[in-house]
Amino acid sequence: MKKIIDSPKNFVNDMLRGIYLAHPDKLTYVDDDMHAMVKKDITPGKVGIATGGGSGHLPLFLGYIGNGMLDGCSVGEVFQSSSAQQMLSVTKAVDSGAGVLYIFGNYGGDKLNFELSAEMADMENSIRVTSVIGKDDVATDNPENRRGVAGIFFVYKCAGAAAAEMLDLDEVTRIAQKAADNVRTMGVALTPCTIPRVGHPSFEIGEDEMELGMGIHGEPGVRRGQLTTASEIVTEMMEPILKDMQLSEGTEVAVLVNGLGSTPLEEQYLAYGHIHDILSACGLKVFHVYVGEFATAMEMAGFSISVFKLDDELKRLLAKPAATPFFIQPQL
Amino acid sequence: MKKIIDSPKNFVNDMLRGIYLAHPDKLTYVDDDMHAMVKKDITPGKVGIATGGGSGHLPLFLGYIGNGMLDGCSVGEVFQSSSAQQMLSVTKAVDSGAGVLYIFGNYGGDKLNFELSAEMADMENSIRVTSVIGKDDVATDNPENRRGVAGIFFVYKCAGAAAAEMLDLDEVTRIAQKAADNVRTMGVALTPCTIPRVGHPSFEIGEDEMELGMGIHGEPGVRRGQLTTASEIVTEMMEPILKDMQLSEGTEVAVLVNGLGSTPLEEQYLAYGHIHDILSACGLKVFHVYVGEFATAMEMAGFSISVFKLDDELKRLLAKPAATPFFIQPQL
Repeated sequence: MKKIIDSPKNFVNDMLRGIYLAHPDKLTYVDDDMHAMVKKDITPGKVGIATGGGSGHLPLFLGYIGNGMLDGCSVGEVFQSSSAQQMLSVTKAVDSGAGVLYIFGNYGGDKLNFELSAEMADMENSIRVTSVIGKDDVATDNPENRRGVAGIFFVYKCAGAAAAEMLDLDEVTRIAQKAADNVRTMGVALTPCTIPRVGHPSFEIGEDEMELGMGIHGEPGVRRGQLTTASEIVTEMMEPILKDMQLSEGTEVAVLVNGLGSTPLEEQYLAYGHIHDILSACGLKVFHVYVGEFATAMEMAGFSISVFKLDDELKRLLAKPAATPFFIQPQL
Repeated sequence: MKKIIDSPKNFVNDMLRGIYLAHPDKLTYVDDDMHAMVKKDITPGKVGIATGGGSGHLPLFLGYIGNGMLDGCSVGEVFQSSSAQQMLSVTKAVDSGAGVLYIFGNYGGDKLNFELSAEMADMENSIRVTSVIGKDDVATDNPENRRGVAGIFFVYKCAGAAAAEMLDLDEVTRIAQKAADNVRTMGVALTPCTIPRVGHPSFEIGEDEMELGMGIHGEPGVRRGQLTTASEIVTEMMEPILKDMQLSEGTEVAVLVNGLGSTPLEEQYLAYGHIHDILSACGLKVFHVYVGEFATAMEMAGFSISVFKLDDELKRLLAKPAATPFFIQPQL
């Protein structure tokens, strides 16, 4: 295991310490627990938006706390859910009377803990909590069982912009749900990654193999096979996305090309060339492209493609500026 | 070689194609050569700033073309200089009468080609060109022989802000030279990377080894040894930086923690915790911290630390907003 760490056991705490030291004016934590991260300045009267999930995916999840995006995040150990108590701490801190929206991925531990936290917030603190769950990974056939992966970025962005406009909880929730319904993602993995506490790679894969549809925790994909050309890989990834979305000609979309960890930006841009060709051939218009690392799996090699269907409302919200320590966007 | 590519031979062209398709409103090229990249809108009367260098280091070099940063970049093959002709094309395109500043790293091929380009621009086109060369890597003892690595980011940022203020070529050059004189970098590599045309890793290193001071093209470092803890690694990296800079107590600095390719953001932030401790113990004040990938070596694992000594002028310029397709900063 080749990692810049001090001890596998304290990896997440040591990382969090560095993040708070690097961004003291932007991020802080509550209840004396570094895993309960909140935005330094909470806007009074604004709907709070909280997320949560395991570590190892930076900038997901905590990296999207900031102006125009999220207000708090409960931070778990690597690839593990945070606790209900940590999420409750975040919830109480980010509520300023307008209620709190949870946006998180479709994973068993997260669902269990965050539903419990929402109940406690309601019962004990009279905070109204709504939830929108990211299920964008088309590698799973049944839409209800789909994992939440990089596409949650678009849900954060649009919901965050809606909350910044001081819309109420029902409206922000409606918009977040619409964003979640409008995004689809497909990934490919070339190498595994190593969880520090485990100390060895999460799975084995041949020197000439790739796995289509693998999850960001190394969950099994839909097909393992010979590594082919970028053109063929992108074609195979775009097919289930576009089939599932059924976009009519002339539809505007945003695209996210997301590196999983060790795939260079050069290769991500090369892949975008093929994505662009396919979208253009379908008569789709690309409003904006994001390329880079938005939701990683430690040092896994591979990337994912997310396509986000826009309407006037989502386009307007996506275009709004945002600024977090990990993601900055001017008005588009 | 596990890469998302179509053909090793066309890797750079295929990547450039994706970049132009992704950012059609921001980037274009001249003289029918994708390797001669320029900003879409050149500000009339502003000093032009051009850079150049090999591919494989994204976002370095071309990623810093944008508002408040650079105007053009000549793009070479992976780890190879661009040609004098490509740099001349860029120079002519970014000059709008106020002259052009070249900022590039201290490498033989780049120096040869860009000096030739500067001469041609002067002789054939009457464009005045000045040059500032990045030599920030303290892994080499003799300051004149030092390589240019991630610290060039600070030179781009300050010179770019100065040019945006419409200062003249002498002033922008003076500021760029001062920024270059005020930055020091040290890196550590944990794994090699593979150039697509070569097809195998650039060097071998043991499963439990690291190499301190390795260059971003895999140039030999100062010490190869057992991989130790993050705390020990950071301490060993900071020592030559601080020794060379001789900063007096109370000095303000900016810090860049730069991932070389496959070292996760989590580990970079963990390292920053230790950097912060060392700077604090020396009585130095951290004005701003940048953490992420700013100058990579394909998928190499490892990171570098750059320390940038600020005075009032450099601090004011560093704090100015900038926006490129790869780097966005609001006013600090």
